[in-house]
Amino acid sequence: MTAETTRSRGRGRPTSPVLSREAIAAKAMTLVAERGYDHLTMAGLARKLGVSASALYNHVSSKHDVLVLIQDRLNAEIDCSAFGRLPWAEALSAWARSYRECYVEHTELIPLIAVLPIADAPKSLEMYERVFIALHSAGIGDRDAVDIIAGIEALVFGAAFDASAPADIFDPGSLGDIAPTFARAAALRAADARASADRAFEMALEVLIDGLLRRVETGETFSPRHA
Amino acid sequence: MTAETTRSRGRGRPTSPVLSREAIAAKAMTLVAERGYDHLTMAGLARKLGVSASALYNHVSSKHDVLVLIQDRLNAEIDCSAFGRLPWAEALSAWARSYRECYVEHTELIPLIAVLPIADAPKSLEMYERVFIALHSAGIGDRDAVDIIAGIEALVFGAAFDASAPADIFDPGSLGDIAPTFARAAALRAADARASADRAFEMALEVLIDGLLRRVETGETFSPRHA
Repeated sequence: MTAETTRSRGRGRPTSPVLSREAIAAKAMTLVAERGYDHLTMAGLARKLGVSASALYNHVSSKHDVLVLIQDRLNAEIDCSAFGRLPWAEALSAWARSYRECYVEHTELIPLIAVLPIADAPKSLEMYERVFIALHSAGIGDRDAVDIIAGIEALVFGAAFDASAPADIFDPGSLGDIAPTFARAAALRAADARASADRAFEMALEVLIDGLLRRVETGETFSPRHA
Repeated sequence: MTAETTRSRGRGRPTSPVLSREAIAAKAMTLVAERGYDHLTMAGLARKLGVSASALYNHVSSKHDVLVLIQDRLNAEIDCSAFGRLPWAEALSAWARSYRECYVEHTELIPLIAVLPIADAPKSLEMYERVFIALHSAGIGDRDAVDIIAGIEALVFGAAFDASAPADIFDPGSLGDIAPTFARAAALRAADARASADRAFEMALEVLIDGLLRRVETGETFSPRHA
């Protein structure tokens, strides 16, 4: 029974939707995608949900709370099933791939969620716990594990933007003379933009994960040389 | 002589600023940082510059043009001097580091610039040409070079968000029971958030560049295994 089909049972009253956190998150995501987070208001969200503002405030106390619901709804879609099933490095790749796919469709949310604390986001916390335990079981220490998660998330978020970029992003326009070598390569990108973005992400991810695996296997330090 | 101190020479008229593309870009960046790109209008920008809208339109024909100016102004700040001076892999690291530093201060521009074509952006094109030639001279082919640039940019943009995230981003709040292992590590991050973000970026960058160097040296393919 989804939230949007649930109805209140008040006799003799017009039926009105019973709110759920899921329904609030879904509607808020639609509004943010359409008009941007700046234009999201609690009053506007309540109106679109067909409920009073006070009914909405029974579930969430602020726009920030709504954003946490959005974050958790989106992160719940990331496939973490490879952890425990595949070796940690392969599982990490599968997780990163699914993570990027979720956010490619919601790049407007990245600037918000990339800097949003995960407090009170249960699905997000479950996800991090699974990733963390997998890294831990590979013998990776706490600090390095946090760095690995943050590094992969950085690649994932940036690559999600790249996947949504227009095909001609590297086209020099009328200024081809400035970058003749690069312009030639830009044409390759334009010929199959999304496939090119996918390949760039896969290449970077593979090189990164291969390198992490190698360091774990050789016992090499994760501390970067550059201070 | 900067644009903002240049004055028109009309006799007997009130002095008014002579516009330059540099002055337009600088003012537009300030406005976007303050109020967001959605709120930027050509009329508002002209007003802030103290010129008529028609004077502004003599230099730029649209908001999109203004964004290209912003992009080029920001990219001109990225230090590319290591190319030609250091071995390509070290130069690539230095470039990525400087690139991230520029965008950490302007994360609000990342969602716009990460998907903005570089046509008509001369400084950006000069930058890409330098990076591309360096990769080329290392024996890296056109397609792989484009992938490497896109992959590093993805990491740079994502890491810029991470560097601007609050210290408690990984704090589980009241839900520590869901992620007890991760919560312990999150506390490490909170203790020195910016240093932790810097280290995560440096680690990922180093592993990535080391892996690229290794592939070039061994002649291994850059084509990702994952289709």
